[in-house]
Amino acid sequence: MEKEKLQMYRHSLSHILAKAVCGLYKDVKVAIGPAIDNGFYYDFDIPESIRIDDFAKIEQRMREIINKDEAFEKIVLTKSEAEKKFKNEPYKLDLIEHLPSNEQITLYTLGDDFYDLCRGPHVSHSKELKSMAFKINKVSGAYWRGDEKNKMLQRVYVYAFASKEELNDYIKQQEEAMRRDHNKLGRELGIFTTVDYIGQGLPILLPNGARIIQLLQRFVEDEEQKRGWLLTKTPFMAKSDLYKISGHWDHYKDGMFVLGDEKKDKEVFALRPMTCPFQYQAYLNKARSYKDLPLRYNETSTLFRNEDSGEMHGLIRVRQFTISEGHLMCTPEQLEDEFKNCLELATFMLKTLGLYEDASFRFSQWDPNNKSKYIGTKEQWDEAQDSMKKILDHLNIKYEIGIGEAAFYGPKLDIQIKNVWGKEDTLITIQIDQMLAEKFGMEYVDKNGEKKHPYIIHRTSIGCYERTLAYLIEKYAGAFPLWLAPTQIKVMNISEASLNYACKIAQKFKEKGFRVELDDRNEKIGKKIREAQLQKIPYMIVLGEKEKNDKTIGVRSRSKGDIGTFKLNDFIKLIKKENDEKIINN
Amino acid sequence: MEKEKLQMYRHSLSHILAKAVCGLYKDVKVAIGPAIDNGFYYDFDIPESIRIDDFAKIEQRMREIINKDEAFEKIVLTKSEAEKKFKNEPYKLDLIEHLPSNEQITLYTLGDDFYDLCRGPHVSHSKELKSMAFKINKVSGAYWRGDEKNKMLQRVYVYAFASKEELNDYIKQQEEAMRRDHNKLGRELGIFTTVDYIGQGLPILLPNGARIIQLLQRFVEDEEQKRGWLLTKTPFMAKSDLYKISGHWDHYKDGMFVLGDEKKDKEVFALRPMTCPFQYQAYLNKARSYKDLPLRYNETSTLFRNEDSGEMHGLIRVRQFTISEGHLMCTPEQLEDEFKNCLELATFMLKTLGLYEDASFRFSQWDPNNKSKYIGTKEQWDEAQDSMKKILDHLNIKYEIGIGEAAFYGPKLDIQIKNVWGKEDTLITIQIDQMLAEKFGMEYVDKNGEKKHPYIIHRTSIGCYERTLAYLIEKYAGAFPLWLAPTQIKVMNISEASLNYACKIAQKFKEKGFRVELDDRNEKIGKKIREAQLQKIPYMIVLGEKEKNDKTIGVRSRSKGDIGTFKLNDFIKLIKKENDEKIINN
Repeated sequence: MEKEKLQMYRHSLSHILAKAVCGLYKDVKVAIGPAIDNGFYYDFDIPESIRIDDFAKIEQRMREIINKDEAFEKIVLTKSEAEKKFKNEPYKLDLIEHLPSNEQITLYTLGDDFYDLCRGPHVSHSKELKSMAFKINKVSGAYWRGDEKNKMLQRVYVYAFASKEELNDYIKQQEEAMRRDHNKLGRELGIFTTVDYIGQGLPILLPNGARIIQLLQRFVEDEEQKRGWLLTKTPFMAKSDLYKISGHWDHYKDGMFVLGDEKKDKEVFALRPMTCPFQYQAYLNKARSYKDLPLRYNETSTLFRNEDSGEMHGLIRVRQFTISEGHLMCTPEQLEDEFKNCLELATFMLKTLGLYEDASFRFSQWDPNNKSKYIGTKEQWDEAQDSMKKILDHLNIKYEIGIGEAAFYGPKLDIQIKNVWGKEDTLITIQIDQMLAEKFGMEYVDKNGEKKHPYIIHRTSIGCYERTLAYLIEKYAGAFPLWLAPTQIKVMNISEASLNYACKIAQKFKEKGFRVELDDRNEKIGKKIREAQLQKIPYMIVLGEKEKNDKTIGVRSRSKGDIGTFKLNDFIKLIKKENDEKIINN
Repeated sequence: MEKEKLQMYRHSLSHILAKAVCGLYKDVKVAIGPAIDNGFYYDFDIPESIRIDDFAKIEQRMREIINKDEAFEKIVLTKSEAEKKFKNEPYKLDLIEHLPSNEQITLYTLGDDFYDLCRGPHVSHSKELKSMAFKINKVSGAYWRGDEKNKMLQRVYVYAFASKEELNDYIKQQEEAMRRDHNKLGRELGIFTTVDYIGQGLPILLPNGARIIQLLQRFVEDEEQKRGWLLTKTPFMAKSDLYKISGHWDHYKDGMFVLGDEKKDKEVFALRPMTCPFQYQAYLNKARSYKDLPLRYNETSTLFRNEDSGEMHGLIRVRQFTISEGHLMCTPEQLEDEFKNCLELATFMLKTLGLYEDASFRFSQWDPNNKSKYIGTKEQWDEAQDSMKKILDHLNIKYEIGIGEAAFYGPKLDIQIKNVWGKEDTLITIQIDQMLAEKFGMEYVDKNGEKKHPYIIHRTSIGCYERTLAYLIEKYAGAFPLWLAPTQIKVMNISEASLNYACKIAQKFKEKGFRVELDDRNEKIGKKIREAQLQKIPYMIVLGEKEKNDKTIGVRSRSKGDIGTFKLNDFIKLIKKENDEKIINN
């Protein structure tokens, strides 16, 4: 079904819902009922609460109305006629009051006994909706006109699709998304929490989350070191003077946390939203020649962005985050090779994490119709974007184009990824910058003894750690690959008789460098296994008298269940390989 | 010589200096000349510059004046008499003008032809100064009255001690301090830099410095993990609401960076000066029982303190720093053992770094005469300090007492350390806190089912990384132990003929996990060695045709020079032990 028609059908269904609810409840006042992406909703003011138990009854009544084949008829009214017609519906009256006095007002009937203020369009008869599949999803509170000073109404959300199959697929998808949602699962697994009096977008990473980020950070820093990146550690704030040179003060100030007031204070500082102007100082610390290039600096950097509270979401949209940010200075001749190296690094990271297949590329360009957002001239932008296009085409990258998505100083190749709810964000970015080196007076002496400004590549290699963690939680539904699992092994004794043996085995795993917990509680083994399973611990070591006597260990995997009895050393060899090679074994 | 007498002698010498300078230069106007800790200085206004070449001549003239045995005579004057006497000395007139009109003014003569406005006291004759050893140190600019709006004078600094031996010892000490000073050496070794437009107290760690901090951080985090600490990662800022609960808003606000204005903004944030109230959230994330205790949380945390620009010093006094901060919640019965564990951890760190012998302990207590600086009652403070005293005495710790040095919430055991210039700072702290758990509603259910507030130990294990790095630079004069050296090995070929072999050897070291650089420049081997030596690289591998043919390596140590020829694997075994066991082999 085409989209417009589907939305009309959904909207028509919302009238059917309103009629059904008016028939089933007393003293119903109706508000509004638009179509939305997955169906529609309707807001009601009813003394009684609509309970989950009532959903079937309401759906049943809706089916009855559809089957009666009632007519949707459009009637045109003047404002005063409308006011009379809806004199008992305060929300409709409020809507009418806010319409211009000369506006033509329409209502739609539904059979003889229901009508609703509405612009339409609608189906002509309710029977046309017969093939629609729908299901009430939930009721939640919503203030009239979204204003918390107004009364809270009951909003009934209904999923509605053109076929039973589409509806079922959608519901299954939603259930799966809910099961994987990092904002829910991350809290359940002790990965993070948030606290009102600390603030929105400022998540607290609990020991399980902090451990995963530590492991990721070491992995990234080591890999970058191997590839010739030099680590820096630069301050998280600077005087406004720095941002005035870089252009952030003019082009990014609204997104920054500023400390102090330029009118009053001698020194005004701001928290950094990007690492670039800080890391350039390492380059500027010495005179540079072409022989020093390329110079690659990386940093495990913390950035701060002053986004709206409403934008915040779990670990994905946050106000403070940690990122492996790098800046690379090179000659024009080195640009393509170095860009390729950056892309290879990002690809290597995504593949290791198992996220590569979920990613797509976006070539983010400036918006020539909105020049004030950017520094530099049209010629400079054309040149930078042409360089990038040539490189991308040469590397055979398939990309979408994102107009107006460039950084204020240059074009970007963004690696995009979607969360379980379908919302897309940038995970990794590689940018070409021909402008900032000049602003900061960054130079090198070329082969002919002439001073030149280097090209700069800005890049991340794994994206922000918090966001990456969120996608990993959703990708693996919390069952992290062994090398990233906060607790890798849970050792459990079946009874008091095998307790000492369990302690010894746990200690052996620890000595080999594994992250192990011992569950020595006086509980049934079934309960211990169930709990470890809920915590998504990769391996459970179950030890009873038999294992103790045989000097073996019983092993359960969270994904495959009981995988048999092992000699300790054989099993260690097995999982050491899984761990060291970062094998995804889910 | 007792201190008061020494200071009088020094001050008398400053008159001798003034007389000498007046005799040697034209149009000298004298300003002031006080005794200081290591001698004295005198400020002069002279058209000509006093040059280093003149120092010997001035010292010679001073000796002559001393040997003449001229008399210091005190003469009492009224203000108007004094004004007449000093009518040609504008700085003295300025001083006189600012004296109360009824003040008795004194001058001291020195022989017949010199007198100076001075309160005294002085020696009676210059010959008494004969045994004094002195040496002009430097001339530097100093504004009259320290105000940059005034004229800049020439300040002559002179070292002066009671004996030649003391003077020489002091000079040697100064030279050594200068050689080790992290603020100088750290910049020379590419460890850090600072940039005006970023701001004071915000050092930029260059690759060598960032690498050392990375190594330290991993070492600390791993050791803490082994000892049962759970890593967290909490935000660097929070709404003012948090700090109002913790008491920071009332007791520490001046030291904090605040974002926003409570009168204007809906949300006011502040950067954190301490991790405590953030890390408590991990505890508060679940209901706790006595079975969960002790709960030990550690974090590699960044803190921000809004100190005066004038207080800033290299890596020691900074506005942003990284620290391994931990908070431990326990029952009263566990307090002593856990305190002891924290102290053992700190001691282990200091010993591993080689800083233990330089450290001393301070028991930092509240100041009962300044109660407004603290939260809690006298009874609570007495109880907390008594607990701490009992523990310290029990552990047989020798400590100084620091009144008024406690945290606002409890007493501290501070581990103090001095920099090369003798200035003492706190490196590590272990604190007992009986107050904040209640403020944050932190509870556990005890054995009897009753709700209790846990005791909290706040502790650092290695101190702030930047400061620790500063002490390490000074301790080792930049020649870091192998495990911390940013570059551990420099491989150098003697000529083109051994270049391939040098590449291969460098690669082998890399594969074994060492941090290696290859110096393949077309330079004399002597120059390559000298430069590596200046960079304080622990091992230099010198490879010529002989080594290539014999399949050996020639090894130089930065401290012992040529240590002979090795088979590669034998040498790797040797330094792997030195590295893994963190041996200090300087």
